Formats: sequence, C-alpha cells, structure tokens
Amino acid sequence: MTETRSLPSAPHPLDAALALDPLGEHRFGGRTTAPWANMVGPFGGITAAVLLQAALDHPARLGDPLALTVNFAGPVADGAFEIDARPARTNRATQHWSLSLHQGDHVVSTASAVFAVRRDTWAAPELTMPEVPPAAEVAVATPRAGIEWANRYEMRFVEGGWPDLDAGDELPHSRTAMWIRDLPERPLDAPALAAISDAFYPRVFRRRRRFTPIGTVSITTLIHADPRALAAQGARPVLACARGVRFSQGFFEQRAEVWGDDGTLLASSIQIVYYRD
Amino acid sequence: MTETRSLPSAPHPLDAALALDPLGEHRFGGRTTAPWANMVGPFGGITAAVLLQAALDHPARLGDPLALTVNFAGPVADGAFEIDARPARTNRATQHWSLSLHQGDHVVSTASAVFAVRRDTWAAPELTMPEVPPAAEVAVATPRAGIEWANRYEMRFVEGGWPDLDAGDELPHSRTAMWIRDLPERPLDAPALAAISDAFYPRVFRRRRRFTPIGTVSITTLIHADPRALAAQGARPVLACARGVRFSQGFFEQRAEVWGDDGTLLASSIQIVYYRD
Repeated sequence: MTETRSLPSAPHPLDAALALDPLGEHRFGGRTTAPWANMVGPFGGITAAVLLQAALDHPARLGDPLALTVNFAGPVADGAFEIDARPARTNRATQHWSLSLHQGDHVVSTASAVFAVRRDTWAAPELTMPEVPPAAEVAVATPRAGIEWANRYEMRFVEGGWPDLDAGDELPHSRTAMWIRDLPERPLDAPALAAISDAFYPRVFRRRRRFTPIGTVSITTLIHADPRALAAQGARPVLACARGVRFSQGFFEQRAEVWGDDGTLLASSIQIVYYRD
Repeated sequence: MTETRSLPSAPHPLDAALALDPLGEHRFGGRTTAPWANMVGPFGGITAAVLLQAALDHPARLGDPLALTVNFAGPVADGAFEIDARPARTNRATQHWSLSLHQGDHVVSTASAVFAVRRDTWAAPELTMPEVPPAAEVAVATPRAGIEWANRYEMRFVEGGWPDLDAGDELPHSRTAMWIRDLPERPLDAPALAAISDAFYPRVFRRRRRFTPIGTVSITTLIHADPRALAAQGARPVLACARGVRFSQGFFEQRAEVWGDDGTLLASSIQIVYYRD
C-alpha cells in the first residue's frame, strides 16, 4: 500500500508578506519578501497592507478597517523591519491607530488607521461603477518584465494597460481600469484591498509615455466594505480604476476606486507621488 | 484740532485661531476661539489648519505643505489645547511630520503632514474645473443660523446651497459647488486652504434632506499650490466643489476640490464621516 502524504503547503505570498511576530506591547517584527519586490525596494501596496495588518493583529483592536494613511518617509530596504502599532484613542465605535515602520534607527514609514464598528443604517451609493465588460471577457495581461510584484496579480486591462514607453506624444489623460485579483487566487480581505488600491503603474508614465523615477509619498485609502462584504466578493476579480488629477512641480495626484463585481464601491484611494523630470 | 488715533487692529479671526505659543521642543499651545464654533466644538477645518500651522511654525520645518491627514479621534472641548509636532523624517526634498492635538490627558486628534521643496518640472492638469459662472455673477449666500464658523466665509453657491431640511424626498446626489473666501478678506495660504477644503455642510444632509448627527472621522488634503501660487490667488474667491461617494453602515465618503479662479487645482481632499441614522 502506498502512503500518500500531503506536503506542507507554503503560505500564500500575500500571507507570507503579512506575517508578523509579536515583539512586545505595540511592537511587531516583519520582513520584506522577494515576491513583492518593486524596481527598488518592495511594492508600496504591500507596505501599506502590512502596516494595516499590525493593527489587525493587535490584541486591543476594535472593529474593522475604515481608513488608512501611509506616508512613505524613506526607502524600505530588503530585509527585516519593525512596526510600532498603538491605539491612540479608542471610542465606543471607532479606534484611532498610530503606526510606524522602522529599520535600524530609521523611520521608514509613518501611518495612521481608523477602525470602526459598523452597523446597518440608511445607505446609498453616489459614485457609480463605470460600464465595462465583465472580467471573463477581458484578456489577462502579460506582466511587465522586471516588476516582480505585478506577477502576484492577475490583471485584465479594460483601459490603460501597461504603457508603451517611448511610443510618441503625450496622452491627454492617464486613466486605467482593470479587473484584478491576487495570484494565486485568495479571498479578499482588508489588507489585500489596501494593496490592490496601490496596484497601478505610475500615472506619469502613461501621460508622458516615458519612464521617469517616481515614488509614492503618501497614500490614503478608505475602506467601504466590511468583512462580510469582502468575504462575499471572495476571490473573484475586482474592478480597479485610477487616473491622474494634476501633475505639477515634481508631484502628481492619483485617485483610485476598487469596485466589487456587483457594482459596490469597496475602497477609494488618493495618493501623492513624487516624480523626477 | 482733533486728534485721530487708529485703534490697535484686532488680528484676523483665522490668524487668531492659528496663533500658537511655543512650549518647548515639538510642543505648541493654542486655544479654540468663539468665531470658529460649530454646532458642537470647533469647525473641523480650523483644527486641521492649526495642526498644519504647528508644523509651519516649527524651527526645523523644510519646504511647504504637500499633504495633510487629520484624524478626529475625539471631541475638541472649548478652551486650551496643546499640539505635539515633530519631524519624523527629513529628506533632501520632503519632510514627514507626526502631529497630535491634546487636551488634558486626552489625544483629541492625530495627524500627519508632508512638506516638500518643490521645483519646476514638466507639468500638466488632468482633472478640469467645472464650468461655472464667475464669482461676481453668483449671489452671496446668507449663512445658516447656529453655525457660527460659516460666518467666517463668504459663500456663493453655484450648486447645492444650504439644504432645505425636511423638504421632501431624498436627492439622487449631493454635489455642491461654491465660490468661497475668508471674511474679512485675507490672502490665501496653506492653512486657509486646508480649512476651506472642509467648509462643506455634511453631504448626508443634502442627500437625505434631513439633519442627523455627524462627525468627520478622518480628512486628507493634498495641497497642489505652492506659496507663490497661493499668493497669486490672493483674497479672491476660490471654487470649492464637493460630493458624496458612498454612504454605508454609518460612514460616508466626501471628495472635494478647491480651484483657483484661473482654473488651476489648488487642493484636493477626501474625508470619511460618521453619521447616525
């Protein structure tokens, strides 16, 4: 009789990147992982996600993520980091977190998060999802060579796919709409959503159709979906839309939305990005 | 011969609210002022402005405001407060600030700001200002009784003026566009712009045409205009536009833009607001 043994399964790359070790009150240890590498350092979205995860892991946590601001103060070096996560104030229905990510003596990121206990109330959408073909009708894009983190996603561009750099004149806008999900497939949760909210190539590449060094300075993501709504979305693709707002004096603004496939807004995000001329 | 004497002029109400006393390294003392009272506590925009002012006043400050996130962790009581403002990291062209506002033993607000040294680069608008009549052609609105801070502004509503509460059915959207400036007239600067970015009545009042208790939980404002551009705008009205994005489970998102009268985007803002059913 042959013995069948299942190999111990490796964790999902997102879960591996979000794994934190408690190091004492308000302190967590983590590390960058190769699958989430960007051109320099890790993908910003994974840094945002792991900062949120620290609050989620904290024993004093109340409620679910509502807002997250991450300020990328300096470059994240490959390797270990520590996160300081402390509840600055806990109310009946909201909790305010002060977060920071450190490597050695350097503050690498500062962040804040708001968690909330949601309850059913009058509700209404206002912004509506753009009309796009369903994910199944859109081709899966081939990731860009050299952008390792993009291999962690299945992307189906409805508009504004990877830009043809050096392709010619500037474009009048920088819109992207894509169906996206984690690879391997993984049910959506708040850290995954925070990462997806940053999963757009820089808008300045599209407008100018050329590459220039860039770096996100600050990103704020509002999370509209509670854990039940995220679980209902499961591992199916979400629609992620982004566009530039203004490019000026070395900084541009990007706004983004992430929609569930039933047309509900899951997250909304705004970021300011440094660019070199 | 009659003697004419000019009375010592009182400071502008905005400058009075932004006046901070240095209390030692990274610490500033301030106080709420009656002209900026909201229905309960001070107008959120003035709290955002004074937090930004603390970083502006700090002797280690580098560059000019680029991004500001303020988390309203608890109610601000009328009276004195202290602001802790410390540079978390200073780079060559950006500086990251950790800020908090305290009353007694309570953390009332946490905040972060990014300052930047701007330089001329390739630049382009993308979002464009809505087409509206010039300020001079729009009537000045009568402020609402009981909302003292609104008297600190001249507001000319192009769309979405003070809502008729209890006027009937829900509205399908919650857009407001108004020409606005400080009263008395005062040249625009970054703290004034941060305050104006929050100078909209709650979107849920307009959608539902009824009053419910609300409170901003977190606001992020990106400042696109450098001090020279703000000075060029001077004391002329700016166009401030806001709309709701999604209302769900006791929280709604508002997005806003503030435009110069030459059509350039001065600031962009996103906030999440608690509402009671």
